[in-house]
Amino acid sequence: MGFKRLIRFEAKDGNTYHGDAILPEGSIDVYEAKTAYVILGNVLSKDYVITNHIAEISKLLSPLSESQIPSLRCVGMNYIKHAIELKMEIPKYPVLFFKPTSAVVGPSDPIIVPAACQMPPAKVDYEVEMAIVIGKTGKNIPVEEAHEYIMGYTIGNDVSQRTWQMDRGGTQFGVGKMFDNFAPLGPSIVSSEVLPDANNLHITSKVNGEIRQDSRTSDMIFTTSEVVSFMSIGTTLRPGDVIFTGTPSGVAVGLEHTPWLKDGDEVEFEIENIGVLRNKLVFENNPALTAKYI
Amino acid sequence: MGFKRLIRFEAKDGNTYHGDAILPEGSIDVYEAKTAYVILGNVLSKDYVITNHIAEISKLLSPLSESQIPSLRCVGMNYIKHAIELKMEIPKYPVLFFKPTSAVVGPSDPIIVPAACQMPPAKVDYEVEMAIVIGKTGKNIPVEEAHEYIMGYTIGNDVSQRTWQMDRGGTQFGVGKMFDNFAPLGPSIVSSEVLPDANNLHITSKVNGEIRQDSRTSDMIFTTSEVVSFMSIGTTLRPGDVIFTGTPSGVAVGLEHTPWLKDGDEVEFEIENIGVLRNKLVFENNPALTAKYI
Repeated sequence: MGFKRLIRFEAKDGNTYHGDAILPEGSIDVYEAKTAYVILGNVLSKDYVITNHIAEISKLLSPLSESQIPSLRCVGMNYIKHAIELKMEIPKYPVLFFKPTSAVVGPSDPIIVPAACQMPPAKVDYEVEMAIVIGKTGKNIPVEEAHEYIMGYTIGNDVSQRTWQMDRGGTQFGVGKMFDNFAPLGPSIVSSEVLPDANNLHITSKVNGEIRQDSRTSDMIFTTSEVVSFMSIGTTLRPGDVIFTGTPSGVAVGLEHTPWLKDGDEVEFEIENIGVLRNKLVFENNPALTAKYI
Repeated sequence: MGFKRLIRFEAKDGNTYHGDAILPEGSIDVYEAKTAYVILGNVLSKDYVITNHIAEISKLLSPLSESQIPSLRCVGMNYIKHAIELKMEIPKYPVLFFKPTSAVVGPSDPIIVPAACQMPPAKVDYEVEMAIVIGKTGKNIPVEEAHEYIMGYTIGNDVSQRTWQMDRGGTQFGVGKMFDNFAPLGPSIVSSEVLPDANNLHITSKVNGEIRQDSRTSDMIFTTSEVVSFMSIGTTLRPGDVIFTGTPSGVAVGLEHTPWLKDGDEVEFEIENIGVLRNKLVFENNPALTAKYI
């Protein structure tokens, strides 16, 4: 048996570890974990050991470091109602775009919104997504074998700046989703041994406690296995690759009054059996740089 | 002074090295190099040494390995005539999309076209691109300082499957450009100490000796410095990041009779002062898999 709930953290002893989180009975909120069993070795191989050494958590980090994630793939429009709210066609094949791994931050980090994203009305948006973490190298993976390649599941925020994405992107989502801090990830990777099927889970987002997105992963157009299989056609998936599986309707751009994220807002995501991810918005203060992109 | 022309290669002594290519007088065709000065240390830092040890080249590899490239960014529609041939708008800002680093292959490798890209008429296309290699970590880089962050220049092929890109991509270029072998790179990185300005170079592509693309980098809408500066707004660029700067008109999709690449074709790219990149097309033979995606 491997890890149940993989975290990466700064410990009170001053070291940074991977660990198997020790949670209060019944809780799936990793922020409540005070300790973890230290894991030694490479968590992306089978060559790791969950030790009996318990370390005290000082700060939760993204469960994989930037350099442990070869690529961060995202599926767009994977919930029908979200495609409709974006006025996009319902896709026949998974829509693929990428975020750079430089965008990854952890569950304890703020989402620092760059000055160049703040041209009024600063269209900064949240997108709760279930994220698949690949555990084994594969290519042309059949749908029925895809589960063997999934190491586990975590929560991702595909933070998006809609001006750059929609008005200035030239049809491509790249710029609107590339910024540093625009891919909060975590807090833990729940092993697929613990959660063998992630295709019927309650998924929600809240901003300052108010529910914005409320759906089930069963509403995904393409299942986790279909997504992994599709992403691997003629294409090598590698251990540590992270795939965001799309977001349900209820993002700011699709809501009446478009309630964009503001400085100080708290975004809370929850996915049943996977956990809770909370990040606070901090708007970078650099009026000269903001003005440059108005 | 650092390297002039960085290569990575398998040597006749059985090792894989980075090296500074030794070329016949006046040549910029690295395939003609038989030997190189072996480089020790990390070529992405200042901590490398060009030794006096000369090794014999057995096989040229991509100048950076997959794991040395944190991300592969591409600028779309950076030549006006190419935007027109694709019937896309002339962009006001650089259009950004990504290729996964798993797509990178070297100058001696074939471009293996996956079965799933061969649904008739197998719309496989070439795109010659000048590629910028980032040498220094940076964010919010001013245009006038951008050259300091450029380690050098190489040649990239943004191989594209137009059915997946245009008909099945749901507006995003991701799938059509993600496949293994779809990012030939090399053969060398020409140091920006040797080539301080790459904004007025002759750039061509040939298929089986026939000229298809013939332009100058001075026709780029956004210069190398503007591209680097733009890609760094609120976004950390890292040593080893590769940026494809866009392709001129003359790709198969834009030509009369759309001369798609075929099994056995040889694609030859040349950029003045940078070099020559040659790759042969090999169509994977798996009719069952091809049929699945027709």
